[in-house]
Amino acid sequence: MTDAPQQPTRPTRVVVWNEFVHETRRDETVLAHYPDGIHEVVAAGLRELLGDEVDVSTATLAEPEHGLTEERLAETDVLLWWGHIAHDQVSDEVVERVVRHVQSGMGIIVLHSGHYSKPFTRLLGTTCSLRWRNAAERELVWTVAPTHPIAEGVPDPLVIPEQETYGEYFDVPTPDELIFLSTFTGGEVFRSGATWRRGLGKLFYFSPGDQEYPVYHQAEIRRVLANGVRWARPTQPRRELTADLHPLGWFEGDAR
Amino acid sequence: MTDAPQQPTRPTRVVVWNEFVHETRRDETVLAHYPDGIHEVVAAGLRELLGDEVDVSTATLAEPEHGLTEERLAETDVLLWWGHIAHDQVSDEVVERVVRHVQSGMGIIVLHSGHYSKPFTRLLGTTCSLRWRNAAERELVWTVAPTHPIAEGVPDPLVIPEQETYGEYFDVPTPDELIFLSTFTGGEVFRSGATWRRGLGKLFYFSPGDQEYPVYHQAEIRRVLANGVRWARPTQPRRELTADLHPLGWFEGDAR
Amino acid sequence: MTDAPQQPTRPTRVVVWNEFVHETRRDETVLAHYPDGIHEVVAAGLRELLGDEVDVSTATLAEPEHGLTEERLAETDVLLWWGHIAHDQVSDEVVERVVRHVQSGMGIIVLHSGHYSKPFTRLLGTTCSLRWRNAAERELVWTVAPTHPIAEGVPDPLVIPEQETYGEYFDVPTPDELIFLSTFTGGEVFRSGATWRRGLGKLFYFSPGDQEYPVYHQAEIRRVLANGVRWARPTQPRRELTADLHPLGWFEGDAR
Amino acid sequence: MTDAPQQPTRPTRVVVWNEFVHETRRDETVLAHYPDGIHEVVAAGLRELLGDEVDVSTATLAEPEHGLTEERLAETDVLLWWGHIAHDQVSDEVVERVVRHVQSGMGIIVLHSGHYSKPFTRLLGTTCSLRWRNAAERELVWTVAPTHPIAEGVPDPLVIPEQETYGEYFDVPTPDELIFLSTFTGGEVFRSGATWRRGLGKLFYFSPGDQEYPVYHQAEIRRVLANGVRWARPTQPRRELTADLHPLGWFEGDAR
Repeated sequence: MTDAPQQPTRPTRVVVWNEFVHETRRDETVLAHYPDGIHEVVAAGLRELLGDEVDVSTATLAEPEHGLTEERLAETDVLLWWGHIAHDQVSDEVVERVVRHVQSGMGIIVLHSGHYSKPFTRLLGTTCSLRWRNAAERELVWTVAPTHPIAEGVPDPLVIPEQETYGEYFDVPTPDELIFLSTFTGGEVFRSGATWRRGLGKLFYFSPGDQEYPVYHQAEIRRVLANGVRWARPTQPRRELTADLHPLGWFEGDAR
Repeated sequence: MTDAPQQPTRPTRVVVWNEFVHETRRDETVLAHYPDGIHEVVAAGLRELLGDEVDVSTATLAEPEHGLTEERLAETDVLLWWGHIAHDQVSDEVVERVVRHVQSGMGIIVLHSGHYSKPFTRLLGTTCSLRWRNAAERELVWTVAPTHPIAEGVPDPLVIPEQETYGEYFDVPTPDELIFLSTFTGGEVFRSGATWRRGLGKLFYFSPGDQEYPVYHQAEIRRVLANGVRWARPTQPRRELTADLHPLGWFEGDAR
Repeated sequence: MTDAPQQPTRPTRVVVWNEFVHETRRDETVLAHYPDGIHEVVAAGLRELLGDEVDVSTATLAEPEHGLTEERLAETDVLLWWGHIAHDQVSDEVVERVVRHVQSGMGIIVLHSGHYSKPFTRLLGTTCSLRWRNAAERELVWTVAPTHPIAEGVPDPLVIPEQETYGEYFDVPTPDELIFLSTFTGGEVFRSGATWRRGLGKLFYFSPGDQEYPVYHQAEIRRVLANGVRWARPTQPRRELTADLHPLGWFEGDAR
Repeated sequence: MTDAPQQPTRPTRVVVWNEFVHETRRDETVLAHYPDGIHEVVAAGLRELLGDEVDVSTATLAEPEHGLTEERLAETDVLLWWGHIAHDQVSDEVVERVVRHVQSGMGIIVLHSGHYSKPFTRLLGTTCSLRWRNAAERELVWTVAPTHPIAEGVPDPLVIPEQETYGEYFDVPTPDELIFLSTFTGGEVFRSGATWRRGLGKLFYFSPGDQEYPVYHQAEIRRVLANGVRWARPTQPRRELTADLHPLGWFEGDAR
């Protein structure tokens, strides 16, 4: 008898979380690109590329418990996080819940200004600060890990006509895998795609995507996010890692 | 239209290479475990676990060009390498060919005493020396990367009743991913499962497995090797990486 | 004119922090080895090996603000942390202060059961859980990074006659540098010496050292800790990393 | 008695190797910047910044054994390597000698077009290919490892007014430490400063510096190279790593 092929046996359950504040404040620039919210465009991109492979829903800050109850997270395989001006309105209780689920196996993809979100800084242990400027510069996203599954099918470079500029020093721990580097018209560089493991969970940060530019409508960006969901989904049951006492020789004979 | 799922569209073509010298010299201990050669047992394990997912063949030192002609390698997705007492009989021409194919995308899995083989030292750039002793000690293989696909379904620890002892310092470059650590009855430790990328190719080294012990008959070891094949197989067409001149703005407009 | 040699111009200011609870509870086993507290023995070891190169003081949980006021930390180059049964008595305010100073450049060395301390888990973003057993087993500390300054002058293996057993899986992020691996009589293995960067600060974790065994009296262990202090001390002024707006071309001409 | 401070007890012996072919062919552009050869300017920079801390000499392709005899290498702490159009004229025997000395502890700093040199590709195990263009573009060198000793005192960014352009994908193994990222006027990005360990030797690659531009006269570039020499110098006696048989319990009692 041979193994079943490495196919998920059910759709990957994805939740796209957005603070959804710029949009509800009726910012015209933002509404031009994201009339129903950034989360809806990101979710549509995942559905478009991954079809039946995923079951995508959304959640926002204004919902009870920000839409991220214990029950909801327990049934989430991969969480995407977009936040910008309301990081401090996210309750610490929900943040600890998200962190615990990531450590226990839930995948998480943090987007753009989410670099300053509580879940990201809490999981990485650094300030996650950076240099920035909003000047509609061209962003080029270069691949430095051509065999990484997240880079599969992504043009090198990926050209984004206009974007907010993020620049180094980006205060994050050394990535487990550095996948993309971005350059901007003004000469700045940014580690724009990188991964870290935290316990049984996988974390992917991807910086392209701002409320003022139609980046999440771009096909190549959707390709990166779809690849990220496939990469981040757990391959084992969720479980909390705890300190365990093991007697001498516990792994031998019947004790195993 | 959605993506096709991440399934290989044809069987992964695997070649198990063995110097096949211990066995042909009629070493009784070796023949007891590997009457038709180590390569046949390794190949059988892959066929058993991966079935139609793979197309497994073998090659040995005594064949013309060691069974590794340009044509053969061009059609090999993953090469497994077992050698011990005949490393210096492998021709430099074949070694350079193997190295070039790995750099261009072919996966390679180097086994046990293959740590001193020409392809391994050539790809890693170090001496690959280690401490050792052959005393039929118990080897415990511990997982330190529980979410790595090569560790999937592998018990922690994996217990090998008797094995040759390998100990640190193992002179290899810092692994890209450290997956397994082995301990031995005498107290030694060894980085027994690790990966490195070289160009477009993926390299997995796994130390358990010696000609004097029936390690490759053990179900958990076969699981590791099957996982390794899945992990190492290329996901893009093979191509040689070369230095290329690119004019200013080559990635823009029609030039892309 | 040539550079000044790379010598610190003043003594490195070291604070050894200990919860100091086992000792004050008059645990006889602990008092046999550490009558004045673990911190005093660790501090004595650093003074013995580093002499005028360091200015070592101590701090404990019972002091106001646990002895770690803003002023004290601002003048600390390297903080050593030992805790075990009172992690939850360390105030969150002091923990955030320690974390902020590490991110801004203060070195930190976390010892043994400090793996579960708030500063360590907060900086690493994982549970830092592990397998354990207290059975006076022999611990062998093997060097896997022979050129790392923390391994300088350390025997390979370093033999500790009796120690508490720590075993993998140790739930920490992939270390930036893995320096030591420990094995124990029962067959367990542990990544016992590892480093991580967090912002401008350097973090070294070293597991040998328990309240019930005289490990911190051992010369080779003192060597590791002295090396750790030298490695972790900052080489630039402390500063908080913040998100900064930079106009186009800010690095050119007079703007630099 | 305390340790001696971590000061080298004798000057670090540095050899700057240059193929010295562009210059001897009387290329006017090259001679304008490097009339006595690139090696003399690099050597002068090291002497200027490191003074009595170093003993700097030079060697070139045309010398017997390229100036790199066994005796010479045995007395070299750090070797710098600049080559471009004569890589294939370097004898394999000398290359193997250099590789062996690096693996045994000699530091090596590979410069610019040395990415395609035999010692570099041999130590790294990859093709080391890249994208390029020579168009006198501005290169900005950004620091992404602010606490690394090689970045000490280096402006961020370091501005090079005119340089040859190197771009990703740079086919090297994942660096042990990524220190600098360069961007160019045309939008390309390059991992321009990175380190790898090979056995007991430390390897630093730094890409800025071309025969047509006065880069090695620039103070900040000299700072990087001086830092590199300090970082790469060995801290232990040179020794070849070999496979050694160790009997059971060899590390115990008198056997240690």
